[in-house]
Order: sequence, then structure tokens, then C-alpha cells
Amino acid sequence: MFSTEKLLKLINNELVVQTSELAGQKPGRLYEPVKYSLEMGGKRLRPVLLLMANNMFTDDIKDALPAAVAVEIFHNFTLLHDDIMDNAEVRRNNPTVHMQFSENNAILSGDAMAFLSYRYLLKCSSARLFDVVHLFTNTALEVCEGQQYDMDFEDRQDVSEKEYIEMIRLKTAVLIASSLKAGAILAGAGNEISSSVYDFGINLGLAFQLQDDLLDTFGKQNTFGKKIGGDILANKKTYLLIKALENASGEQRKKLEKWMVPKAFDPNEKIEAVLDIFNQLKIKDLAEQKIDSYFSLASEILDAMPVEDKRKQPLKELSNKMLGRNH
Amino acid sequence: MFSTEKLLKLINNELVVQTSELAGQKPGRLYEPVKYSLEMGGKRLRPVLLLMANNMFTDDIKDALPAAVAVEIFHNFTLLHDDIMDNAEVRRNNPTVHMQFSENNAILSGDAMAFLSYRYLLKCSSARLFDVVHLFTNTALEVCEGQQYDMDFEDRQDVSEKEYIEMIRLKTAVLIASSLKAGAILAGAGNEISSSVYDFGINLGLAFQLQDDLLDTFGKQNTFGKKIGGDILANKKTYLLIKALENASGEQRKKLEKWMVPKAFDPNEKIEAVLDIFNQLKIKDLAEQKIDSYFSLASEILDAMPVEDKRKQPLKELSNKMLGRNH
Repeated sequence: MFSTEKLLKLINNELVVQTSELAGQKPGRLYEPVKYSLEMGGKRLRPVLLLMANNMFTDDIKDALPAAVAVEIFHNFTLLHDDIMDNAEVRRNNPTVHMQFSENNAILSGDAMAFLSYRYLLKCSSARLFDVVHLFTNTALEVCEGQQYDMDFEDRQDVSEKEYIEMIRLKTAVLIASSLKAGAILAGAGNEISSSVYDFGINLGLAFQLQDDLLDTFGKQNTFGKKIGGDILANKKTYLLIKALENASGEQRKKLEKWMVPKAFDPNEKIEAVLDIFNQLKIKDLAEQKIDSYFSLASEILDAMPVEDKRKQPLKELSNKMLGRNH
Repeated sequence: MFSTEKLLKLINNELVVQTSELAGQKPGRLYEPVKYSLEMGGKRLRPVLLLMANNMFTDDIKDALPAAVAVEIFHNFTLLHDDIMDNAEVRRNNPTVHMQFSENNAILSGDAMAFLSYRYLLKCSSARLFDVVHLFTNTALEVCEGQQYDMDFEDRQDVSEKEYIEMIRLKTAVLIASSLKAGAILAGAGNEISSSVYDFGINLGLAFQLQDDLLDTFGKQNTFGKKIGGDILANKKTYLLIKALENASGEQRKKLEKWMVPKAFDPNEKIEAVLDIFNQLKIKDLAEQKIDSYFSLASEILDAMPVEDKRKQPLKELSNKMLGRNH
């Protein structure tokens, strides 16, 4: 079985080959931002998951490598465009593409990345590639829907927990789930087990996004790679804020809402004030419980899969690592 | 044989069905701009060409209809994003999507349209659909390259005629050519003849784009649908400006360059002054000659195709109409 480290090396090697090919392509202003964004690093989570799911059903993962590259490029495409829409200036401790180049560059190179991801996907030689192209296309649309809900929520104060979970399912979980499922399909796994792989991915993805929300507020700047408290400053309707608004007393709610109105404020003061209310309401505990529940669901689905235990081991370890669990 | 009018009706009916389906989909803010952009009308040139090429080789064009919808949606996706990048406020006498909704909407709904076009394409039931998905993906990347060259040219005063033709080949001609070729492939046409169909499309597309340049400066507002003189005001490196800079005397060149520097000017005065130099240099004639030469090439390729004359007739008529030739 391939370990996370082995797969990561495989993927990064392949990305080096592909980006140096892109580097020579013209027009340079189109392909440089693509290279910049892919060389920025990142955890390469989706391609690793894809290959790992593939490896659950086959020892020869070589044929799935182009699909792994495809999902990583697709994921970076979404980051380019989301960062414009969210006015994000920093990503992985680097300037975002629209800051480093220009907004037009981020739009157009993002578009090119969307099509590049199809180009790589189409390189897979599998009798069932067609199913994967279908899955990939539907997933891409769902990711757009998720981003739209995320933006819609900015103008709303009444987002429910259910709506929020549906949003992160679309925005984050489906791509993780589809990467896993694509790996399974490309290895020739049957429909039923491929669906289980997908469901595992959805629950893992939900837990992972909730964890990301948690880290944005309660994490550490240098390990997280983004500015801590960014969600608070932007009044982002995260699980934390939604639960806080739901559980707040009249006075706490008034305070929270007061901080969400002004456009000019001292950022540190706002973060401290909102954090104070989060702490009073034990929001961190609530979020951790929610993360645990999705993570348990994911683990149960993986455990129940009719696959040799040792073949599940890498996925088990990686999902533990993704959620910061060391066992 | 299906006439342009018949095909147009077929496509518009299908688009009505598809857009009303989209209208019901959530989130509304994602799909409304898609509907808005598709309902704005337009000549539906690419889908008509696709079905016409299909009809050259088969009487049953039904199976190619989803591909026709796909290329129209793809084309509109490029318009949404190009209009942001070009700061265009009006399209087909309507506000552009980023003006009517927001820039974020135009980015994200544009993205969704790119994936929707794949979704429609994948509905075609043809043994050779795979070749079409490949073609479509490569074409999409070329279109991005063309748009990048177009933007690159904004900062340059030394764009050559050759560079310009390559830019419009990528930005405009390849999509027209690929639409035609896709129609041929889906009908089961062989490789050689499909390549001829593509080459016909490239030459037709080049003539068509040069014609568009010409109309932007020498056309009439209400029939053209965009503001006349927009290219002049934006210092766009069109065939007209490139030939004018190439052929200008020292004094004419100085005048042209003087008008390209200031950010604030009286628009009518600028249009008049630049037009005056274009007229002195007979730029309109030069452009018309160039259009004629590509159009003749296209016609020769079509004439040489080993297909019954009556099956070529609709394409012949439509290409004449596209270039404003009434014979």
C-alpha cells in the first residue's frame, strides 16, 4: 500500500513535470499564474485521496495519476476565483493570484485551469473514464453552487445550521468525495462500493471544513497559512457564528450584531469581542462535537466497506491526520 | 436539408426548455445570470454551424442538439468573463451580466456555464463523443489563450498583422471551426473531411472577426448592438489600427499615437480624428480585401469537399450571410 508520503511525492513530482511544461507555453501571462498557483504548495489532499481510494482496489495506481493532477488543478482554479470574490489577499502565506498578478489574470488563468483539469482527466486510460468525466462535471457545478450559497449568506443574518451544512457539503465535501470516488471508479470498483467511498468522503469533507472554520478562529497563524480571525472580521456565517447567534442571550446577540454592522473598526478589538462571546457560549466545544460526529460517521462507513483492512489503513491514517487526531 | 431559420428555431426552442429548467434551480443567484445571458438572444451562430455541419453528413441531427446547446453556452460563458475583463457595459443592447448583477455573479455564473456546457455535451449519444470532448477542451484552452493575447496587445504599440491574425484565430476562429468539426464528427464523418470542415471554419472565423472589427468602427449602432467606435476609444489593436500604424506617414502616426495617450478626452472628437486618418489611409478597403481573401479560402475549401452540392448549400448561404454577401 502507498503511504501518504509516497503519494504526495508522486503527485508533487508529476506536478513539477506538468508545471515546467506549462511554463514554456505561450502566452506567458496566461500560464504563469497557473504555475504560480500550483507551485504555492498546499496539502495536495484531493489528489492524495484520489490515489489512495484507487490504491484500495488496485496495486497499479499509475493510470489514475492524470486524474489526481486534474482534481488538484481544479481545486486551485476554485481558489483563484474564490479569492477574487472574497477579496482574499493571502493564501498559503503568499499573495493570492489576483494580488500578485491582476484580477483579470486571476479570472482568465482560473478559466484556463478549469479546462486544463479536463485535459488531464481525459488522459486517463480507463474503460470507465466517461463515468468519471460525468462525476467531475456534476461536482464542478455543485462547487459553484456552494460558493454562491456562501456569498448569499453574507447578506443574511438568519442562516440555519442545516443551510450551512448544505453549503459546505457543496463547497467543500463533494470535491473530496468525488476525488475519492473517481479513484475507486478508475480502479474498476463496483457501483455500490464506489457510492460508499463517496459517502465516506462527504462526511470526512464536512468534518474537515468545520475544522477549517474552527482553525480560522482558534488556530495559529503560521501553521494555518491564513490570517487568524479573518472569518470574524468578514462576518462570515461559519458554524461558529451561526451557533453563537442561535444560542446567544438577548444581550449577547445584540453585542454580536453590533459588531457586524460597522465597516470601519479596530480589527483586534472586534476579534477579541466576538471571541469573548464565543467563549461564553462554549462554541468551540459545540464545533468539536459536530466535527466528531461527522468524523465518526466517516469512520463507520470506511470500517463497513468490504475491503481488506490493510488496504483501508492509509485512508484511515490520513483522515485521522486531516482532523488532527493522532491515533 | 435544414435551413438556417429552421435550425435557429430548433436551437432557440431547445434553449427555452433548458433555461426554464435552469430557472427553477437553486441557488437562484447562480442560475439567474445564466438565464439572463442566454435569453439576451444573439445570432446562435455556433450552434447553427454545428448542426449544419452535422446535417451535411446525416439527416438525423437530433443527437447533435445537446452539443449545439453546449457550444452556445460555452460561447456565452466567454462573453461573461470577457466583458468583465474588458469593462464592457453593453452587450446586444442590454447591460452586461456584471453590470446587471455584479462582478462576482459574472465570474461565478460564468464558471457554472463552462461546466454546464460540458454537461450538455456529455448528453450526446455518439460512439465518437470522446473525440468531441477532447476537441472541445483543447478549443476552450485556445480561446483563453486568444483572450490573453488580446489583453496583452493593450499594452503594446508594435503588434504585427501576423500576431493579430493568430490572436483572432485563437479568440474567435477556433470555436467556430470546432463547432463545425464537432457537428461533422458526431455525424460520423471521417478524419480527413472533419479536418477540412475545421479549416473551412478557421477561414470563415477569421473573415467574420475582421468583419466585426470593421463594423465596430464603420457599422451602425442599432444593427451592431454595441457602441460604435468602442474599439477606437479603447485603443484596441484591431486590424484597422494595426494597418493604420503600419501605413501611416510620420505625421499621421504621431497624430494616432497622440490620441492613444490621454485617459480623458472627448469621445466623439477622438473617434472623428482617428476615423479621419483611417480614411486617408483607405483602411476600410484594406480590411475588406483581407476579409475577402479569407472568405475565398473558406469557400474554396467548402467547394472542394467530397459532399453532394445540395448538402453544402445551407453552409454556403449562411457563410455568405455572415459576411454580408447577398449572392
